[in-house]
Amino acid sequence: MLETSTAHSHTYNEITNQPVSWKTTVDAISSQWAELQPQLTITPDTHYVFVGCGTSLYIAQSAAQCFQEITGYTSLAVPGSEVFLSAKSTVPSRYPVIAFIISRSGTTTEALLAADYLAANRSNVTTIGITCNSDTELTKRTRFSIQLPHAHEESVVMTQSFTSMLIALQYVAASLAGDQMVIDQISSLSTYLQRDIRSFESKAQELGENLNLDHFVYLGLGPNYGLAQEGNLKLKEMTQVHCEAYNPLEFRHGPISTVREGSAIILLAGNRERDYVPSLVTDLKEVGAFVASCSPYPIDGSDMHLLVGKELTDVPRCALYMPFLQYLAYYRAVSLGLNPDQPRNLSQVVKLDE
Amino acid sequence: MLETSTAHSHTYNEITNQPVSWKTTVDAISSQWAELQPQLTITPDTHYVFVGCGTSLYIAQSAAQCFQEITGYTSLAVPGSEVFLSAKSTVPSRYPVIAFIISRSGTTTEALLAADYLAANRSNVTTIGITCNSDTELTKRTRFSIQLPHAHEESVVMTQSFTSMLIALQYVAASLAGDQMVIDQISSLSTYLQRDIRSFESKAQELGENLNLDHFVYLGLGPNYGLAQEGNLKLKEMTQVHCEAYNPLEFRHGPISTVREGSAIILLAGNRERDYVPSLVTDLKEVGAFVASCSPYPIDGSDMHLLVGKELTDVPRCALYMPFLQYLAYYRAVSLGLNPDQPRNLSQVVKLDE
Repeated sequence: MLETSTAHSHTYNEITNQPVSWKTTVDAISSQWAELQPQLTITPDTHYVFVGCGTSLYIAQSAAQCFQEITGYTSLAVPGSEVFLSAKSTVPSRYPVIAFIISRSGTTTEALLAADYLAANRSNVTTIGITCNSDTELTKRTRFSIQLPHAHEESVVMTQSFTSMLIALQYVAASLAGDQMVIDQISSLSTYLQRDIRSFESKAQELGENLNLDHFVYLGLGPNYGLAQEGNLKLKEMTQVHCEAYNPLEFRHGPISTVREGSAIILLAGNRERDYVPSLVTDLKEVGAFVASCSPYPIDGSDMHLLVGKELTDVPRCALYMPFLQYLAYYRAVSLGLNPDQPRNLSQVVKLDE
Repeated sequence: MLETSTAHSHTYNEITNQPVSWKTTVDAISSQWAELQPQLTITPDTHYVFVGCGTSLYIAQSAAQCFQEITGYTSLAVPGSEVFLSAKSTVPSRYPVIAFIISRSGTTTEALLAADYLAANRSNVTTIGITCNSDTELTKRTRFSIQLPHAHEESVVMTQSFTSMLIALQYVAASLAGDQMVIDQISSLSTYLQRDIRSFESKAQELGENLNLDHFVYLGLGPNYGLAQEGNLKLKEMTQVHCEAYNPLEFRHGPISTVREGSAIILLAGNRERDYVPSLVTDLKEVGAFVASCSPYPIDGSDMHLLVGKELTDVPRCALYMPFLQYLAYYRAVSLGLNPDQPRNLSQVVKLDE
């Protein structure tokens, strides 16, 4: 599968490294969290807030839903800018809050401003930075930190860092809840990905190289919504192809009007929405879409189907959908003659001048 | 401005009717809420959840931020489907919850299923339906209801119903918080729109008829994010033009890669993000975008600017951004020879067969 022309693509190598980085992530977070958790004051009314920008916001969106589902604590995702510009409308003020601030580099301006804002203005908030670098600026500005430097990346686009930080946050939730079943499943992810990664890559290549498809829609519900957003962002960053992301049932409320010959729908389905999938696929086929579905069960009527994590429950399965979406963006970029490592108009870290 | 060919468009008439419907909305909600509020048990740890599908989800997103900002209570927006398929990850379980379920028709399947799910499974939740019809199915399935039948619509797309339900929910927040300043501002919205509506329409027509622009991006932060999403959905439903919506600072984290000659950025800016607007506009101009900005202050470098609600604070100003966005979609549809009242692939109410 690996072609000569792409042998040195950082993006390709970082996607392909995920069985390794996921295993290291579980080891790293289990030891770091064992040290960190006893230092936190957690009360029954603690709220959790997940803060990020871009890809890190999509980690935040998925992590917040996973966290609330596993722990029962109220959990929210907030874009970095809305913390320091709109805290009254976004960050709970009447409860103790633990805020995870997510930034691969640990230097994103908005993540730093969010950390500074909370430290200066919100005594009810304890901040924990989570990064894929060691000893960053964010580490200095948050009360605590989680560091996953093994998931560091050379590429502009985030791939293994997305899944590694998501898995780490799911581990934290399971650890807080004492949910050994979820911890065991998270620990097994690396093995499942190792088993399936070539099949995910092969299907992603087939879909990415199909240039008859020129409009992509990513659908995910609940914890999968952030994954759909991230799949969409990967393709958008790397190829500038017209693409969008929605909750699958929301998609019928308006956006389905854009589907036509040439539209590909990438459906990330879990167990919770299984009863609603058949009629959705029927509706999508009726308006002319190509349907590529990813789920832990077969889906009739799909033009392409990936069996993903049938051994897993919905929350721990999340990361396993991502390599297919990442390879899809990668192969589309390569087939368009673009450099996946260096997207148009973008740099590795967004730094703002006010 | 009103052309012969569009004289009988329901969409046009419903957009244009907003000074009237907003005034009636304030009258209706003030009397309905005065009757409803004493029947509710509200404690300091009550959480508010706003549930909707499609346009109603975007009302929910804006309303949740407005609510938390005005009242200080933790407030969340949840898509209807995630209530009945993923409640554990979305609806707080440890607190008393007041859930507003938003549906113009009062018959949307997912809104009804959400109401039924909460009634059957969550004794901590009190449901309040909000509709633009009287005595609907939703009214029967929620504990309480707010009915705004004067904002009923003949068109498939929602325009005055969006702003009317949003204004009603802002009124409720202000009433709960005893915030007379916000109530006064909400009560004045009709007058401000009456004053400015022809100017909003004229600029929307100019922009909508500019067929050199074929990619639209709507940007809004905090309470304005739901408005940007709704502006985007209006254009998408009515024209199928390539369009997207983001938080303005998030847009730099990846999606800006798609901007090119022919991209129009519609920036909805408030007072809270004012310091960050100039550098954003500079960045957008650098990558070749046409920038149409709407704000209560002038914005240098904009290709088009609308002065919106300079007398108002950020939350009560929300509704006033919408008529421009609605007219923009309308005029683009007309200039493409499409019928704005009857979008492709859509019907007035989404009803599901499981």
